[in-house]
Amino acid sequence: MVIIHHLERSRSDRIIWLCEELSIDYEIVQHQRDPDTMRAPETLWAVNPLGKSPVIEHQGQVVFESGAIIEYLLSAFDSDSLRPSLGTKAYIDYLQWLHAPEATMTLPILMPMLCHAMGIESELIPLFADSETQTLYRYIEAELTQRDYIAGDNFSAADIMLSYTLMMAQSLAASGPDTVFASYPSIKAYLARLKSREAYQAASVKF
Amino acid sequence: MVIIHHLERSRSDRIIWLCEELSIDYEIVQHQRDPDTMRAPETLWAVNPLGKSPVIEHQGQVVFESGAIIEYLLSAFDSDSLRPSLGTKAYIDYLQWLHAPEATMTLPILMPMLCHAMGIESELIPLFADSETQTLYRYIEAELTQRDYIAGDNFSAADIMLSYTLMMAQSLAASGPDTVFASYPSIKAYLARLKSREAYQAASVKF
Repeated sequence: MVIIHHLERSRSDRIIWLCEELSIDYEIVQHQRDPDTMRAPETLWAVNPLGKSPVIEHQGQVVFESGAIIEYLLSAFDSDSLRPSLGTKAYIDYLQWLHAPEATMTLPILMPMLCHAMGIESELIPLFADSETQTLYRYIEAELTQRDYIAGDNFSAADIMLSYTLMMAQSLAASGPDTVFASYPSIKAYLARLKSREAYQAASVKF
Repeated sequence: MVIIHHLERSRSDRIIWLCEELSIDYEIVQHQRDPDTMRAPETLWAVNPLGKSPVIEHQGQVVFESGAIIEYLLSAFDSDSLRPSLGTKAYIDYLQWLHAPEATMTLPILMPMLCHAMGIESELIPLFADSETQTLYRYIEAELTQRDYIAGDNFSAADIMLSYTLMMAQSLAASGPDTVFASYPSIKAYLARLKSREAYQAASVKF
């Protein structure tokens, strides 16, 4: 049994989805953000001293960080079905897109929202953010025009990492969610393909 | 032979250090930032369409993203010496700190510098950034008070990921590098311990 500490509107969505994909027995512990500050509540800080979601408990161990939890769960439950084999090109793509969504994509996606929330309005912030994100989206679009999933012809856990970030970009867009990938048909088709998965649909009612 | 595309003042330092630790045969291809924009030059964009460093070439494959390159090189050259065994507590810490430096720490460390570079001055930015980074530093300090390395008693590649980010925080601090960890003696001792490593010293002359 895996306990998933779930904070509404957070990266723990990824872990619920992964557990559904792997048919892992899991239980969700809900945590509610403070409605004024939007910060995580004390109950989450008690489990993870960094106050971040996702965090899981499994066999007495606490694991935090989306990418770390995904690697941990794949190794603990099912090493092969959602992670390409070592030594393949797909494995390199898997590694890159296991890391890049949080390591490279998140900053330019979140920064405009964070600055806006702090009352900071500067034309330079969207200029910087757009320059960074459009480079990323162009690259991803080219990759997904060649294949159905980011690490090859098969769905992998890297798709869970990446698509959450792409959907976050949609949900945060000042211009509305439909505008973000209007010029990127392969990304739009990719997100539709992932959302049609049985495991995604079973997970998304719990997000 | 691994080709490391190295951009001055960038995360490729980590990969040079890792290659020195593992005695991997490597060659550095230097790329110079545009002195006006500080952006990566066209030569780097030609190798990595995301225009980011680090990127390596090995056996005809191109790999980008610090964390992905580290995992790739460990699997290709030496799986065991710098990565704890599966199923151990050290492995969980390794995974967490392989991901957290870029996924969680970088945004609050870089955001004040980015905003400053855009001419945006708001008291709220350092308030936000300090709140986030101090939570992280307190946690890391507590971990490093109990043990010498972030994933246990042995040095691992997670130390390369984490210490680069801690040193970046020092180099970007408006108040000067010595101030950042003035209240965190275990972090200071940790950085000194890592910098005294033979492999770090051999690498750092090439940074």
